[in-house]
Amino acid sequence: MLRVEGVIAAVFTPVKENGALNLDVIDRYVDHLVSQGVLNVFVGGSTGEGVNFSLAERKQLTEKWVTAGSGKLQNVIVHVGGVSIPDSQDLARHAESVGVQGIATLPTLFFKPQNADMVAEHLKMMCDAAPNTPLLYYHLPGNTDVNIRIEDLVNAVEKLGVPTFSGAKFTGSDLRDLRRSIKLFGDRYVFAYGCDEQMLCVLPLGCKTFIGSTYNYAGRLYNKLIDAYKNGDMETALRQLDKSQSLVGVLFAHSFDAGINKQVMSLVSGIDMGPPRYPMVYRSDDEMKQVRSELEEGGFLNGIY
Amino acid sequence: MLRVEGVIAAVFTPVKENGALNLDVIDRYVDHLVSQGVLNVFVGGSTGEGVNFSLAERKQLTEKWVTAGSGKLQNVIVHVGGVSIPDSQDLARHAESVGVQGIATLPTLFFKPQNADMVAEHLKMMCDAAPNTPLLYYHLPGNTDVNIRIEDLVNAVEKLGVPTFSGAKFTGSDLRDLRRSIKLFGDRYVFAYGCDEQMLCVLPLGCKTFIGSTYNYAGRLYNKLIDAYKNGDMETALRQLDKSQSLVGVLFAHSFDAGINKQVMSLVSGIDMGPPRYPMVYRSDDEMKQVRSELEEGGFLNGIY
Amino acid sequence: MLRVEGVIAAVFTPVKENGALNLDVIDRYVDHLVSQGVLNVFVGGSTGEGVNFSLAERKQLTEKWVTAGSGKLQNVIVHVGGVSIPDSQDLARHAESVGVQGIATLPTLFFKPQNADMVAEHLKMMCDAAPNTPLLYYHLPGNTDVNIRIEDLVNAVEKLGVPTFSGAKFTGSDLRDLRRSIKLFGDRYVFAYGCDEQMLCVLPLGCKTFIGSTYNYAGRLYNKLIDAYKNGDMETALRQLDKSQSLVGVLFAHSFDAGINKQVMSLVSGIDMGPPRYPMVYRSDDEMKQVRSELEEGGFLNGIY
Amino acid sequence: MLRVEGVIAAVFTPVKENGALNLDVIDRYVDHLVSQGVLNVFVGGSTGEGVNFSLAERKQLTEKWVTAGSGKLQNVIVHVGGVSIPDSQDLARHAESVGVQGIATLPTLFFKPQNADMVAEHLKMMCDAAPNTPLLYYHLPGNTDVNIRIEDLVNAVEKLGVPTFSGAKFTGSDLRDLRRSIKLFGDRYVFAYGCDEQMLCVLPLGCKTFIGSTYNYAGRLYNKLIDAYKNGDMETALRQLDKSQSLVGVLFAHSFDAGINKQVMSLVSGIDMGPPRYPMVYRSDDEMKQVRSELEEGGFLNGIY
Repeated sequence: MLRVEGVIAAVFTPVKENGALNLDVIDRYVDHLVSQGVLNVFVGGSTGEGVNFSLAERKQLTEKWVTAGSGKLQNVIVHVGGVSIPDSQDLARHAESVGVQGIATLPTLFFKPQNADMVAEHLKMMCDAAPNTPLLYYHLPGNTDVNIRIEDLVNAVEKLGVPTFSGAKFTGSDLRDLRRSIKLFGDRYVFAYGCDEQMLCVLPLGCKTFIGSTYNYAGRLYNKLIDAYKNGDMETALRQLDKSQSLVGVLFAHSFDAGINKQVMSLVSGIDMGPPRYPMVYRSDDEMKQVRSELEEGGFLNGIY
Repeated sequence: MLRVEGVIAAVFTPVKENGALNLDVIDRYVDHLVSQGVLNVFVGGSTGEGVNFSLAERKQLTEKWVTAGSGKLQNVIVHVGGVSIPDSQDLARHAESVGVQGIATLPTLFFKPQNADMVAEHLKMMCDAAPNTPLLYYHLPGNTDVNIRIEDLVNAVEKLGVPTFSGAKFTGSDLRDLRRSIKLFGDRYVFAYGCDEQMLCVLPLGCKTFIGSTYNYAGRLYNKLIDAYKNGDMETALRQLDKSQSLVGVLFAHSFDAGINKQVMSLVSGIDMGPPRYPMVYRSDDEMKQVRSELEEGGFLNGIY
Repeated sequence: MLRVEGVIAAVFTPVKENGALNLDVIDRYVDHLVSQGVLNVFVGGSTGEGVNFSLAERKQLTEKWVTAGSGKLQNVIVHVGGVSIPDSQDLARHAESVGVQGIATLPTLFFKPQNADMVAEHLKMMCDAAPNTPLLYYHLPGNTDVNIRIEDLVNAVEKLGVPTFSGAKFTGSDLRDLRRSIKLFGDRYVFAYGCDEQMLCVLPLGCKTFIGSTYNYAGRLYNKLIDAYKNGDMETALRQLDKSQSLVGVLFAHSFDAGINKQVMSLVSGIDMGPPRYPMVYRSDDEMKQVRSELEEGGFLNGIY
Repeated sequence: MLRVEGVIAAVFTPVKENGALNLDVIDRYVDHLVSQGVLNVFVGGSTGEGVNFSLAERKQLTEKWVTAGSGKLQNVIVHVGGVSIPDSQDLARHAESVGVQGIATLPTLFFKPQNADMVAEHLKMMCDAAPNTPLLYYHLPGNTDVNIRIEDLVNAVEKLGVPTFSGAKFTGSDLRDLRRSIKLFGDRYVFAYGCDEQMLCVLPLGCKTFIGSTYNYAGRLYNKLIDAYKNGDMETALRQLDKSQSLVGVLFAHSFDAGINKQVMSLVSGIDMGPPRYPMVYRSDDEMKQVRSELEEGGFLNGIY
């Protein structure tokens, strides 16, 4: 069973200028996260452009995160989906063999499951491949067009029997579904919310786990938000949320995608993440100068708190 | 300027068994709302099936709500959109002439505005027709496919000059946009959230106004929720939200639409709302027996608290 | 029963510079159509921006087309949909009273019918209002999101009994559905294809009727295409289609909508159609200069053949 | 350059009852195709469920089709897309090394290209990997949501320089785009239409190449259609199209997908294709009994002509 609370950074995948994996910087990357109090990572999701890397690269990446995180990170969760199920099972087996704390999968992307029962079947196949590794469903209906309720999925999974099932990364807008899942199943499974800049909306629902990209460089901001909320200091919590919303506002103003996000990470962290892969577009120096000045104006350049 | 806090019932439109307006029951309807502490109504929106009624019927309905609400309700806001702009202007003029507290409009439904500037132009035309009546934009992107940001709309409106503009009914899922609108413009405009069962998600954002259909029959439940939140009693607030989510769960289990909702209103309030109009389907006695038993099981039949 | 073959011009609605109806030019408009061998009109559809005009204006427009077309046009078909059903029935009754040859309706636009049976119900209500006037369903799934098969609709209509049902304006991409409808029901109903620039794709399916906007100013081009096809001269038919596709290419290059289309009509016909109504944007003189030069280059300015 | 006219069967991928590849039957499969006058295959597309198989399986499949087709088939075109670009390049290199006549690729499925220029970039990367193998773009906007015009793509490709670019499998509904592509570029590239049951709609556009699934078992029907069209016998051509539309009507009546299609192939050809892979559902014996009787009724069981 996966036990994880607080923020989980959906990590970027560092590459060299030529696009090849740049695994060496991941040690510094881990330290950068830990220094912000971020002790959990989600590797190869949409932020990490998992589907843009070859199976071989994804395995190398998994290995490196496990090694680099050893003794420093609490949970390394690896996304193994977005490919054919046999290849995804291969990634899952590999991830299990190197000792990740969890795996996750998107639904199949071309031929799409039509309902929760079918998603449960998929999860069962993943469980068969990695029978000892907690498994999350990656719920991202806005991108995948797979619009199921997580409440229904848990019921389907429990009916079918998927021993490793451990919950979902919930990047949907049906917050009733999120609350219902937490209320009915929150004692057994993790439901990790995926919209960083709306964190304060789901804390009152009992949501305790969060996976997102801005936790890479603004971990302190959110940890402070969570603490304030826990202490009943709603004013501070809201102030922190407003900061988060200003921050992502800069990204939105530059056609938010995993590309601009990656470049902002390089800029803020000082660790060069390299360019995003196709079809994300590497923003020009000129545009990044503008981004830098907007981040500066927001007070986001010398550490984000 | 429109000053309204708390819940606003998006009221149903009562009809006789033959489909004709049944204005007579609206007096009792008002009392039913007031008895729950619900003092504001939104007439002829999607709950009220405004677009299903003729222009003449919509005017009659407006007149009746103003008369029946006089001295009892604080705000009667009337939706005048969903028709051609000249006809909508006619409804707006009429609404102003009979003394409503506010009007609201959907974006145009067939030829759709492409951005916030174009929506602002529409609002200006409505302002021209009813220059003394506060005007809300009805933001319902899931149905209308008009996906603008309300923050952008307010900026566009202020640039263009729309003196009666008073805010928006916000039934979208971009809660950052909701918060930004409240933070930047909440002192001048009303942003009324439209997802009843997610109320607790937006209270921390400073949202104070709510328009929805379940306030018709579960006003007490939500008023208690709001009070608990104001008192910092998050536990009670969440318990109330869970009740709301159970309640709408019954509706969802029966293919939620304005039709089943209307029949549940009749069932819970004891005031016969009559059938919904085409293309909503009148649920059979058998189905309603089932609905009744599910409501009973949830404890929702003898008043909803 | 509606008997109509060949092209039907989906006519524009002429307005003055201030946006008011400009009915006077419709007499010339009729002559312009007749001179091209276009003897049938479809009034107040999407080209005619029907939904942008008030009910009163739509009635005036209907009256004028009937009068102006008398003795000159064979069929005046009026679109009466896009408003509430009672108001649409009112338009239908009016159209019948002034002697149109047919009426047509879009499906309801806000609350949408879920299947063919529900669309048939709507048609029955329209038939009740105008029991002596042939009725077409306006199939425009790309805009309305009502994705039914016309084959299913005819079956539903025949089961329900809608005596005035006469077919459909078919602006969909499921050409199997179009062929099936023609094959199974073409002896009793009209299926009028709505994509001018793809006319040659459906002639081999036995399609004989066409409703579209470019028939307003390029009627000769298409009449020649149809004649060539009938004579087995596929080469000429394809050459004509290529011309049609070049022509609409000019419109596409300027963000095709009912607005640019209306301005091209003014330009080509010499009859001033005036501006489109909101939310279509009146193209600037500069843009229209560009359009004119592109039309000239294509050889489309001195009559389109 | 790819030179291919007539029908190309988008072949199924035969598997054993346990889901493992069943390569042995592909020899008989080839003979079955050849006996119908079908001399070209498209391997691992949506019919062949390419994205459901591992990279290793896809390579085995490619090898087998090349071997089995040697001396019998004219063109073996292999779909290598639907995976990360580096893995897709690996498949492309492999396909080139074993001597396929062409490769094809879907656009990227998760992070989607935003315009024709970006798709061209993708094609360039594929060209780099297999610089001696003709390359088709697999245009399937209804599934991929990548809505570009092929005319624009060819212009982008020619500007960028993609020496192996050879055209597109065109499974879109914008038949103006298809005609424009053929008219402007048909001398240099292949544009293969992908909607079998609408073949007669595009023959008049000069379309000469067709890729589809029903050519697997109804090749004769379509070859006869094409011959009739070439001979100017439109009556026979339409009769053949009607047969095709009846045939696919059986599939549509059973929730058409690559699964039911595969089972119909087994039934009609007598070659056991095995079950489809997840998430397609294997139809029950009972349902297939019904399908068989419907096919029989249509006269499709003893060879389809």
